[in-house]
Amino acid sequence: MLLTGATGFIGTALIPVLLAKGFEVHAVARKAFSPPPGNIITHSVDLMDLAARRALVKSVAPPYCLHLAWNAIPGRYLTTRENLLWTAATLGLYHDFVTCGGRRFLGVGSCAEYDWSYDGLLKEADTPYRPSTLYGSAKEASHRLLQESALLDGVSFAWAHLFFTYGPGESPGRLVSDIARGCLNGEVVPTSLGTQIRDYMYVKDVANALTCLLDGQVEGTVNVASGIARPVSEVILAVSEAAGRPDLVELGGRESPVEEPQSLVADVNRLRNEVGYEPSYTLIEGVCETVNWWRSQIRND
Amino acid sequence: MLLTGATGFIGTALIPVLLAKGFEVHAVARKAFSPPPGNIITHSVDLMDLAARRALVKSVAPPYCLHLAWNAIPGRYLTTRENLLWTAATLGLYHDFVTCGGRRFLGVGSCAEYDWSYDGLLKEADTPYRPSTLYGSAKEASHRLLQESALLDGVSFAWAHLFFTYGPGESPGRLVSDIARGCLNGEVVPTSLGTQIRDYMYVKDVANALTCLLDGQVEGTVNVASGIARPVSEVILAVSEAAGRPDLVELGGRESPVEEPQSLVADVNRLRNEVGYEPSYTLIEGVCETVNWWRSQIRND
Repeated sequence: MLLTGATGFIGTALIPVLLAKGFEVHAVARKAFSPPPGNIITHSVDLMDLAARRALVKSVAPPYCLHLAWNAIPGRYLTTRENLLWTAATLGLYHDFVTCGGRRFLGVGSCAEYDWSYDGLLKEADTPYRPSTLYGSAKEASHRLLQESALLDGVSFAWAHLFFTYGPGESPGRLVSDIARGCLNGEVVPTSLGTQIRDYMYVKDVANALTCLLDGQVEGTVNVASGIARPVSEVILAVSEAAGRPDLVELGGRESPVEEPQSLVADVNRLRNEVGYEPSYTLIEGVCETVNWWRSQIRND
Repeated sequence: MLLTGATGFIGTALIPVLLAKGFEVHAVARKAFSPPPGNIITHSVDLMDLAARRALVKSVAPPYCLHLAWNAIPGRYLTTRENLLWTAATLGLYHDFVTCGGRRFLGVGSCAEYDWSYDGLLKEADTPYRPSTLYGSAKEASHRLLQESALLDGVSFAWAHLFFTYGPGESPGRLVSDIARGCLNGEVVPTSLGTQIRDYMYVKDVANALTCLLDGQVEGTVNVASGIARPVSEVILAVSEAAGRPDLVELGGRESPVEEPQSLVADVNRLRNEVGYEPSYTLIEGVCETVNWWRSQIRND
């Protein structure tokens, strides 16, 4: 199978799971990298470069593709026009994959594709797609075009909507990473009041769920999320307590981003009943592993 | 200004109009070609090739771009996954254009972006976008992403919905081209009953309208069409009469494509009142020029 974005936050967590599942992994990233041991071949390829991408797909001729690569730089990814290029790379990758005999393509989208004014759990078949950011629109356009093409091409296609993923290796500038680092470094961390309700999932659960989805036959869109509605303040508290410094958190010391919806929580019936996946980490377990990872990073600095 | 698809059906008609309007035209096509005389520079570039495309846009740094290039091969264009690559090239071209200081981008879409089950004239602001073909979806996704990005980028953006364009240089395999050629060659031409209602516009009117739109300041989507609801049989008759052989047309000798809507006609209030364009060719004038062109082609064979 072909894995793009292999060195990213989710890609890093995915590789051991894919290997354990018995996949031969062709892992792609822009820059050269050292893979973990196992049945894995790395490729250093810029997926935006049509000739290089096509040569890669032709040489590997993977039956499966899990496509993660995208721009997700905190603070920029919602509005940068670079995501037009990632949309282009996604469409091109799918095209080349099918042309080279690929059988099942799993793309990774976002809860940002849904209509955020929808009242209730966000559900694949029911909630309208009405993105309110360029990022959401780019993901939604990719997902729709690939889904329609896959129907014509006779290719198995699935698309995961990720919600809020946290864990080791997350970029700084995100909620969990910033609180973990701040508390471990002994710095005051101003946060929003944390009254928004969000659906958080530990990155290892995300990796397990994506592998399960890839390895199965479920087609179409699937929420890859916990289904648990949590006030963000609960996550803030859990992280700061795992870091041993809840006193450093200044709840309400920072304004909530404007135009953010009050609640973003997934209906996970498809993931649970059709894909057959249940998360195995509690919030406390996930947060403790994450904080321990940050601790090891800070020690290594 | 940068013109893509310069050697295509509409591109060929556009070049003299753009030159007459005073534009310096950088005309792009995949293969090398000889331009008409005037203030025109040709570029032979594959727009799907990121490096080549970027080098072109960087060297020209055009303030205006009119992007026509796409796959429109009769019988294939509605379903081919090659249009995923044209979507990719369109997003990439816009990205490079803006990055190099471009100021106004005019893209060319289709009536296939609209919901064909809509009752009434198809209108930019009112008719939902609900394409029923991959081609329509690809055009609509391109238009929506570019429109959203342009808003963030502070770039002037317009998107033309073309309806049914005919004229010299149209590909064989289309209604007007097939009847003109068939009648001039003395062959029987089976057609549908022609009871469907369509909006036909002569290619020189399309070229004039696009130039007018590019040269103005109207933003967003604009139907570039006649606004005239004609039974297709009227077009069939006009072409066969201009070719002098209405007897060769076998109305009803061919089934209508399934799933085609009964009526596809544009509301042209934006084109007329905001862009300020009125078509200047009657159907008979356009058809006569077209048939004469086919006559010259057949003679030259």
